[in-house]
Amino acid sequence: MADFKWMEELHQKNGTKMVLLVMDGLGGLPMTPGGPTELEAANTPHMDRLAKEGALGQTVPIRRGITPGSGPAHLALFGYDPLHYDVGRGVLEASGVGVHVHKGDVAARGNFCTVDADGNITDRRAGRISSEEAMPILEKLKHISLPGVSVETKLVREYRFAVVMRGDGLESDMDDTDPQKTGVPPLPAVANQPGSARAAELYNQWIQLAREALKDEPKANAMTLRGFSTDPALPQFPDIYGLRAACIAVYPMYRGVSHLVGMEVQGFSGEHPEDEFAAAARLWDEFDFFFIHIKKTDSKGEDGDFDGKVSIIESVDQALPDLLALKPDVLAITGDHSTPARMKSHSFHPVPTLMWAPATVREDTQTIFGERACAQGGLGTFPATDLLPMMLGHANRLAKFGA
Amino acid sequence: MADFKWMEELHQKNGTKMVLLVMDGLGGLPMTPGGPTELEAANTPHMDRLAKEGALGQTVPIRRGITPGSGPAHLALFGYDPLHYDVGRGVLEASGVGVHVHKGDVAARGNFCTVDADGNITDRRAGRISSEEAMPILEKLKHISLPGVSVETKLVREYRFAVVMRGDGLESDMDDTDPQKTGVPPLPAVANQPGSARAAELYNQWIQLAREALKDEPKANAMTLRGFSTDPALPQFPDIYGLRAACIAVYPMYRGVSHLVGMEVQGFSGEHPEDEFAAAARLWDEFDFFFIHIKKTDSKGEDGDFDGKVSIIESVDQALPDLLALKPDVLAITGDHSTPARMKSHSFHPVPTLMWAPATVREDTQTIFGERACAQGGLGTFPATDLLPMMLGHANRLAKFGA
Repeated sequence: MADFKWMEELHQKNGTKMVLLVMDGLGGLPMTPGGPTELEAANTPHMDRLAKEGALGQTVPIRRGITPGSGPAHLALFGYDPLHYDVGRGVLEASGVGVHVHKGDVAARGNFCTVDADGNITDRRAGRISSEEAMPILEKLKHISLPGVSVETKLVREYRFAVVMRGDGLESDMDDTDPQKTGVPPLPAVANQPGSARAAELYNQWIQLAREALKDEPKANAMTLRGFSTDPALPQFPDIYGLRAACIAVYPMYRGVSHLVGMEVQGFSGEHPEDEFAAAARLWDEFDFFFIHIKKTDSKGEDGDFDGKVSIIESVDQALPDLLALKPDVLAITGDHSTPARMKSHSFHPVPTLMWAPATVREDTQTIFGERACAQGGLGTFPATDLLPMMLGHANRLAKFGA
Repeated sequence: MADFKWMEELHQKNGTKMVLLVMDGLGGLPMTPGGPTELEAANTPHMDRLAKEGALGQTVPIRRGITPGSGPAHLALFGYDPLHYDVGRGVLEASGVGVHVHKGDVAARGNFCTVDADGNITDRRAGRISSEEAMPILEKLKHISLPGVSVETKLVREYRFAVVMRGDGLESDMDDTDPQKTGVPPLPAVANQPGSARAAELYNQWIQLAREALKDEPKANAMTLRGFSTDPALPQFPDIYGLRAACIAVYPMYRGVSHLVGMEVQGFSGEHPEDEFAAAARLWDEFDFFFIHIKKTDSKGEDGDFDGKVSIIESVDQALPDLLALKPDVLAITGDHSTPARMKSHSFHPVPTLMWAPATVREDTQTIFGERACAQGGLGTFPATDLLPMMLGHANRLAKFGA
């Protein structure tokens, strides 16, 4: 926050092109003592060449010891301290599917669930119904009307949807309705302070009408809502950094957080690394900065699939020449956090980070891209919020501070 | 401070056991260029094995370049930024000998000294009288009475004692009465602001009566007071971290600072590392977190006794199997600051730090516990205040931040 003031004063424009390539959950652990991590096990000749020519380091996403969620971890990579900028899950989810949340709107993330005759939850994800099944179900909710407010819903994926309520006098400080377990009914929306009472009451009315509309659905006959939140009004990328920035990401949440920071979210077809790099190529002349997000490293890590995560990393490496052919001036490759297959979850470990910038990087002694090499890299271990300023520095986009 | 809010929100309980083993003044320097430091010279097969299995780093106790006192250095290790949490020496000293200091009390550290017929100090430590000699002298001060306040004194060790004044309208913002040199008289207590005037006046009355009571003592015929302070009301370990924490330390000051942060200070017999580890074993089921303090590494460093410091480190290593037999989930070994024998004093150098946690640590490439290895370790160089959160992370005691 305070630091953005300096970014705003120091940034200068030039024709450089910068790429931030994020492999979600990149950081890993060995499966056995002394063994390689996922990144170390992967055959990555192109990244290793970049490591040799560039400099390595480790980023700390939030604070040391703290395991990040994906939203805060990305905010940090974009330079926003997540302990200062608190963005709700509802806003992230809605923004991710292109539903704008303005100041005074209240957004939530919805999950369809299954309840029994007594109203107790039997499946928190409604049998993981497909997006195709969910679409007409969500359609039924669009006909609900409430006095004085409008409600917009949009499917995110499978059983997940975003809901945004708009009207006067709404505040978002409410508890989740998701009890986080089965065998009990969904909770009512409860205001945490008087200002949120109206929104809580209206959401409870909406839930009741929605349950009536869905009462004959075999699986998705109820819903839980969480992450009630409104527009956090974040400082914007073009203002802070002077960058016209493109987001190239497949998954809604990452598109959402990119939109919130003022990136322009891009549509493209396909979902493989080469598809994302092709999108960057097509947009190359229009933007200064490209955020490219690879999701599946994290998914494989969460599945405990070490070899699968290795394969995803290798598929990124194989496609990398397409990106390098564009001749970026600065390319940073990192993750938003660690997701070691051994832990099957996000973790607190620092994240391997590679900085490549032919004109300006100070090369270190490291020659491969991996956790142990990054721990000894020339960039040191540093807060993820410093990565963007470092990229701008390497792009000669920050003026001298003082005379 | 702000971060404690997050610790309070994120901490979760589980059955893990954590040990923070502090060798006071652990960090050192080579006696000759290219030579080993004390820790590097010591034969430490057990710590070296832990270094190989775990990860190394360096902690910065206060800020880079700043030489820490023991009180602030321990506060930092416990996660409290000593530049924010200012705990007076008087409070530390009193707490260390079990004299509680409540809000509104004013504590000071006292030194007996020798003054000549003109009232000028000839020995600032009263000939370093023994505790046995000092005890009856201090007894004479217990009969002093002042209007409206009570005064409690307790011997710390040798010529040092703690004094606590209790009553209404007392504030602690006063200058030390220790002139820090001989050939001049002790200074009067002087209030730095109007609120402290009453306490300063009462302390000066107490000093006058004490000097009369001691006028026939050959050595301890006067005293200096410093570190006037009151209860800093620190956030407490169980609240911040959700930990029931035991302090196992021989020396009063360390017991005092542990008490102030909400640890439960333990009594035990003996003063060798194996005695302290035996105390941990006896208490193992009752606590989540064990702070174990080894004093003599610092004492030998202060004496300029390189070999003596090496021996103390080796004695800790030899006893370490007793601690490892308890199977801690997380064991951090570090110092509160550096005390290089070459400098015969505390120093500003960062402190070698070892993190061992079989289930969760990301092993680095280092294979021995020493300053040079720690400087290249996977944990990097980090503020000592991050160590506790890192230990909690490694113990899976912090929930994910954000979704």
